[in-house]
Amino acid sequence: MAGLEYVFEDVVRIYDTDAQGIAHYAAYYRFFTNTIEKFFKERVGVPYPNVSDELWFVMVESHAVYRRPVKLGDTLTVLLSPKVLSNKAMRFDLKILREGEVTTEGYLVQVAINPKAWKSVEIPREIIERVST
Amino acid sequence: MAGLEYVFEDVVRIYDTDAQGIAHYAAYYRFFTNTIEKFFKERVGVPYPNVSDELWFVMVESHAVYRRPVKLGDTLTVLLSPKVLSNKAMRFDLKILREGEVTTEGYLVQVAINPKAWKSVEIPREIIERVST
Amino acid sequence: MAGLEYVFEDVVRIYDTDAQGIAHYAAYYRFFTNTIEKFFKERVGVPYPNVSDELWFVMVESHAVYRRPVKLGDTLTVLLSPKVLSNKAMRFDLKILREGEVTTEGYLVQVAINPKAWKSVEIPREIIERVST
Amino acid sequence: MAGLEYVFEDVVRIYDTDAQGIAHYAAYYRFFTNTIEKFFKERVGVPYPNVSDELWFVMVESHAVYRRPVKLGDTLTVLLSPKVLSNKAMRFDLKILREGEVTTEGYLVQVAINPKAWKSVEIPREIIERVST
Repeated sequence: MAGLEYVFEDVVRIYDTDAQGIAHYAAYYRFFTNTIEKFFKERVGVPYPNVSDELWFVMVESHAVYRRPVKLGDTLTVLLSPKVLSNKAMRFDLKILREGEVTTEGYLVQVAINPKAWKSVEIPREIIERVST
Repeated sequence: MAGLEYVFEDVVRIYDTDAQGIAHYAAYYRFFTNTIEKFFKERVGVPYPNVSDELWFVMVESHAVYRRPVKLGDTLTVLLSPKVLSNKAMRFDLKILREGEVTTEGYLVQVAINPKAWKSVEIPREIIERVST
Repeated sequence: MAGLEYVFEDVVRIYDTDAQGIAHYAAYYRFFTNTIEKFFKERVGVPYPNVSDELWFVMVESHAVYRRPVKLGDTLTVLLSPKVLSNKAMRFDLKILREGEVTTEGYLVQVAINPKAWKSVEIPREIIERVST
Repeated sequence: MAGLEYVFEDVVRIYDTDAQGIAHYAAYYRFFTNTIEKFFKERVGVPYPNVSDELWFVMVESHAVYRRPVKLGDTLTVLLSPKVLSNKAMRFDLKILREGEVTTEGYLVQVAINPKAWKSVEIPREIIERVST
């Protein structure tokens, strides 16, 4: 399955950069988060990552490979490929492009929990369907 | 009253800086927070800013004046003068020095609340005493 | 002079919040920066805050008053009133509203410098005109 | 080779946390950076990550697995195992423990560059020796 690809535009702001004159390595995770947040709002129709008092998505893994630095003022295109890994976990593959060239690749894995018990729970069928199609 | 002055040492790290090659203006608030957090741990003997399930200190005002930029790797001395403004509010005056020279001055004002009701409450007498002396 | 008022929409994301369940006090400065950055791009037509190799705007003062907390997922309207203070300095007054209610007010003051000499310089007339009208 | 293990103590501060009541996933990279910065200062004897005008370490990969959440006020022990991957690249394996229990594991890979040419360069022998022993 080729699957869904969601596209988001972002910009490198002064607080994303560091004294190397490029985006700080942890700031790319902000671009990732911005993209997933917008995807949930627009396509899934629920808040992210705290969906309700009984459903949060908590992070269990993060990864990024930095191929080319991005700089202050750069316009970024972020491509998101969401995947349902199991009835409790999702993986978000992300690619950041600048003028058609891949600068950064990474992924995030999140698990559904009930925050009251802080126990993993099943992701509601509706969310699974909207994330996978 | 000359009052208490608490001294904290900090260092400018890569994530504090931005593409101007200096500490980002909002990062100085991290130096302020680090200093107050350590002051509460060492001198007041309670966690900060969430003291307990019934007492949090929430921010109501922040201010900083940037006289000289600080740079990656700079060792900073932060001077804190805490003040009790009322039985519900505290003010923290802060000065950042590098090699004896003032680089930054600012203050933070915080109010005590009960987070369950999200209403202001009186600061316990013990905390007031330890903050003021 | 009533002056210009620029309007920007933002959203409170998970990384803006802290363990008090509200936006962290320093995160509001990110909303301020986002607004000014967009204003410069759209209305002034130059990059911000690093306009060119010979013109940067550096921060000399920041201030915020937090009247009501904002929370994860809140949609914010940020109102910006830029002012030219002198031929070298600008002030940005900012107000954050949520559903028509003011939550936060603040300002930033920035000075134009030549980063090569790290000396203040005059703001180009073009920028002054576009900021003031 | 068992290799070096460097130990650093850190604390979860309010700005590290998010509205899930735990440290934000990207904040753990700050704990990683703090540890490596201190290791370079104490053991390698050079600034990090910008060693000189001709030698910077830039990030090429970051990874973290979050096994247990850490919370506001938690005292963390960070274990760092630095490795020289080649004459141009280093890898830093990191483990975060709280009361003897592993909460987080991850690694960072950095490459030496000359920032003037933005080209990879060989890591000076002195640094390689101090990092590996």
